[in-house]
Amino acid sequence: MMEHTPSRTLAYEQDAHDPDLRVPVTEITLAPSPDGTPNDPVRVYRTQGPGSDPVRGLAPAREPWVVARGDTEEYDGRRRDLADDGRGAVRRGAASQEWQGERRRPRRALPGRTVTQMHYARQGVITPEMRYVAVREGCDVELVRSEVAAGRAIIPNNVNHPESEPMIIGRAFLVKVNANIGNSAVHSSIAQEVEKLQWATTWGADTVMDLSTGDDIHTTREWILRNSPVPIGTVPIYQALEKVNGDASALTWEVYRDTVIEQAEQGVDYMTVHAGVLLRYVPLTADRVTGIVSRGGSIMAGWCLAHHQENFLYTHFDELCEIFAAYDVAFSLGDGLRPGSIADANDAAQFAELDTLAELTHRAWEHDVQVMVEGPGHIPFHLVRENVERQQELCDGAPFYTLGPLVTDVAPGYDHITSAIGATEIARYGTAMLCYVTPKEHLGLPDRDDVRTGVVTYKIAAHAADVAKGHPGARDRDDALSKARFEFRWRDQFNLSLDPELAEAYHDETLPAEAAKTAHFCSMCGPKFCSMRISQDIRDEFGGAQAQEALVGMAAKSQEFRAAGGEVYLPHPTHRP
Amino acid sequence: MMEHTPSRTLAYEQDAHDPDLRVPVTEITLAPSPDGTPNDPVRVYRTQGPGSDPVRGLAPAREPWVVARGDTEEYDGRRRDLADDGRGAVRRGAASQEWQGERRRPRRALPGRTVTQMHYARQGVITPEMRYVAVREGCDVELVRSEVAAGRAIIPNNVNHPESEPMIIGRAFLVKVNANIGNSAVHSSIAQEVEKLQWATTWGADTVMDLSTGDDIHTTREWILRNSPVPIGTVPIYQALEKVNGDASALTWEVYRDTVIEQAEQGVDYMTVHAGVLLRYVPLTADRVTGIVSRGGSIMAGWCLAHHQENFLYTHFDELCEIFAAYDVAFSLGDGLRPGSIADANDAAQFAELDTLAELTHRAWEHDVQVMVEGPGHIPFHLVRENVERQQELCDGAPFYTLGPLVTDVAPGYDHITSAIGATEIARYGTAMLCYVTPKEHLGLPDRDDVRTGVVTYKIAAHAADVAKGHPGARDRDDALSKARFEFRWRDQFNLSLDPELAEAYHDETLPAEAAKTAHFCSMCGPKFCSMRISQDIRDEFGGAQAQEALVGMAAKSQEFRAAGGEVYLPHPTHRP
Repeated sequence: MMEHTPSRTLAYEQDAHDPDLRVPVTEITLAPSPDGTPNDPVRVYRTQGPGSDPVRGLAPAREPWVVARGDTEEYDGRRRDLADDGRGAVRRGAASQEWQGERRRPRRALPGRTVTQMHYARQGVITPEMRYVAVREGCDVELVRSEVAAGRAIIPNNVNHPESEPMIIGRAFLVKVNANIGNSAVHSSIAQEVEKLQWATTWGADTVMDLSTGDDIHTTREWILRNSPVPIGTVPIYQALEKVNGDASALTWEVYRDTVIEQAEQGVDYMTVHAGVLLRYVPLTADRVTGIVSRGGSIMAGWCLAHHQENFLYTHFDELCEIFAAYDVAFSLGDGLRPGSIADANDAAQFAELDTLAELTHRAWEHDVQVMVEGPGHIPFHLVRENVERQQELCDGAPFYTLGPLVTDVAPGYDHITSAIGATEIARYGTAMLCYVTPKEHLGLPDRDDVRTGVVTYKIAAHAADVAKGHPGARDRDDALSKARFEFRWRDQFNLSLDPELAEAYHDETLPAEAAKTAHFCSMCGPKFCSMRISQDIRDEFGGAQAQEALVGMAAKSQEFRAAGGEVYLPHPTHRP
Repeated sequence: MMEHTPSRTLAYEQDAHDPDLRVPVTEITLAPSPDGTPNDPVRVYRTQGPGSDPVRGLAPAREPWVVARGDTEEYDGRRRDLADDGRGAVRRGAASQEWQGERRRPRRALPGRTVTQMHYARQGVITPEMRYVAVREGCDVELVRSEVAAGRAIIPNNVNHPESEPMIIGRAFLVKVNANIGNSAVHSSIAQEVEKLQWATTWGADTVMDLSTGDDIHTTREWILRNSPVPIGTVPIYQALEKVNGDASALTWEVYRDTVIEQAEQGVDYMTVHAGVLLRYVPLTADRVTGIVSRGGSIMAGWCLAHHQENFLYTHFDELCEIFAAYDVAFSLGDGLRPGSIADANDAAQFAELDTLAELTHRAWEHDVQVMVEGPGHIPFHLVRENVERQQELCDGAPFYTLGPLVTDVAPGYDHITSAIGATEIARYGTAMLCYVTPKEHLGLPDRDDVRTGVVTYKIAAHAADVAKGHPGARDRDDALSKARFEFRWRDQFNLSLDPELAEAYHDETLPAEAAKTAHFCSMCGPKFCSMRISQDIRDEFGGAQAQEALVGMAAKSQEFRAAGGEVYLPHPTHRP
């Protein structure tokens, strides 16, 4: 949601107790109503951050808060290994575009200390991160603290990602949206990935996952983290696999552990870990229509089969918790056995894994490590609700993070829509964050336009769910836009919409003139054909009056109406009659 | 859904009792599975008709059925009046493009006879139309007859529209989609409207409404009807208003009645009538955020105010029923007071009108006239269900026909999506037909691409609801496509999808080569990175076996797996991990 006009500006909300704590919002100023009544500006949640020069990165604004806690230390960190950037980098002796900006020494918890927001919350400590989030959500900071302490919400904030603006993921708060970026075999440049990051947050992505699988994985991630105002998530197994030349059966706990530490030192805020894919669950997928469609899930299933051993992510889970606790990395427990078609929805494999994810959620909490749980996928509409209610019950309210779900499989090319339908339903019943799906899902790699379409479509699903949940103030923006529409304040309509540029472009295809944006009629039908007018006539007659009183005066009114030459206008033909 | 490849062909389903009765379907032939197992062709519902030469029109295939019943007569019909085509035609002495094809004399019921499908159904008569519909829906013809007799379903088939292929609208049957076309002040040619009609039915529109408001209304409608294989709906008040030069207060029952007969003689299958906008309800809209947004609703509200008289559509409703009964025109009872924003959803004005629409439904049924009831509009997600359940209860199951509803107002430019979310929810709970919304809703006039996007988006909502309702066979297409996806039968995936051309185009942006369409890997990640492969490996290991048996053999299997050099493939990075 760019400040693309003087009417959309960057403003700040302040914390009552700490005036230095300023939270950016987008302020939309509105024109007065036709009768001259002013309309208050509308402030909307903003994810795009202050903006950065890619080669320099963002300022480490959160660093003083981390340092002030005095429970972390700087250290040399793991030695940089060119293999972290793949065989290409080893061959060349360097990544194709090394990070040139500031290089801070990594930071980790002092021995024996835990530095997670969950740990502080459980100690009854209110951190600046919690205060920031409370201002951002417009809620009491005690709600933030208590939800984080209970595990029902997470604030993904690695101590090594001080550029990030704190945000919260939990069912008591606004529904969030994640956008996926990342390079792949089909090569894309580092600059392109940073641009995708900035583009995604511009349109409202609350977190971004870097799913890179190609060359320069380490360096691409460095550029992304240093420029990201939102939490960054990754799937360490992807890079670990690169380190063993793509042969999953060659994976080991040691290679994986090394990769996790490498990424934690860079500042990754949450990591997807497919520790619920147990050896005994694998055969449960054999008779599925679409088997295993999760990438991490198939890697671990393949590893289990190849070695006939239990998933090393499961057997080493507690060690993983200790590492996460030292950097405040949050778990995103991957649903490696999620259904890949509505035919496989809510089946034995999916729910068996969910039972294990619930067990792992409680184990992570024993380490004060923050956790969210990933969900499907492909689910027919009538089975969607069961997914979130079951997860919420088994995982004692740990935040649910779902991919869609798609409610039908017959519309490749439109899967942002098929999945937004399921996403709205699952968010309505308590899913805390939605992972976007772009129109190219199942068909190809998303381009810039697909990222925009995917993010905006998911902001629709998230917002519709906030409204359905009765989230405080969620409907205000709808009402402001509807009032602007009713009063023909076209410019205000555009500025209040999730995609002001597209709305204006569509409008201008019919009526380009600037005058048309203040004209008191709707662009489809011209001045004589607009129902909004007769409605305003009716309001002029009866506005504010109670219906009964109004009826008493009806006869007189109707004479006045005719005397005033009251005319009737009609809505446009694209409306159903 | 065009036959754009040799694999999508026009086929026919036959009626067991009447071999002459052949119902067109689109047959999609599929390639065999990798293991050589053949895959049965899939037959999908088809709305596009046999196709026509616009200047000649379609053959009157249904005429013999109508004639054979012997309860109608041909007659001279109402005299053609140039004013039917507006002031322009009067000025020119002709419509800009008179219909040149065959002109049949209009047909109506013999004195004292009723010729509606509802009347026959209630007499226990099974018509060819009912048999045709039963074959089309793949159900027992007695279900069709009994649902029509009970008023829970309608078969909109004006005796003067013999070009139409019978279809049924009712909650016991597949959810249907309507597309709106029609010219307007912003002029579009008659040829363009016929093209829009054919385009809309090509993508799956089950009915089309001609909402023309510009010049040549009568003649445009003639061209549309003569070329339409689907039922055509109109809003007679639009043309009636043209006849009184756009001044709603000058409308009279006589002008309206004349217009209804004019359109009934042409063959309009259903008409939207805003007879529920009662004088005493108008003040109930005064304090709304968006007043009255229905065009017909605002016309009648304005008329009631101007005259302080009761809505003439309400006071003359029984005469209207008699006319409809003589041609088998179905009512689409308009919801003139529907909310125009989620702020106004489910309010006193909306539900007061619904009470009256229920009363009118029962009055129409006394005349054996078919009825459906129109619904909103703009409704927050959590209030959607109440709309259809209340309508179904009050109207004793009369088919509900809704416009979306949109579940948020903040996304102009994406309202096909915001409304498809609400449409899926409302159809799941019993709405029989969904009126599409295009991306340009609220902003401008839809073009060719918008019509395609709107129709396909609504086919998604309708199909997702059919699946959620457990409609027999609804999921078959999903499963066939998912199986094709799992087996890398790309060409089959495209052909099975709602928009084969777009799916293929997106795929080809990444991997254009024909070879890639049979390659056993997914286009996003290349041969080495595809989770589908590991899943197939697992199936090869355990396929068909019960999980427990499989587990027993696990150790051995895993050795075989490694011995076989089992490799692990990964899904593509656009997937959430």
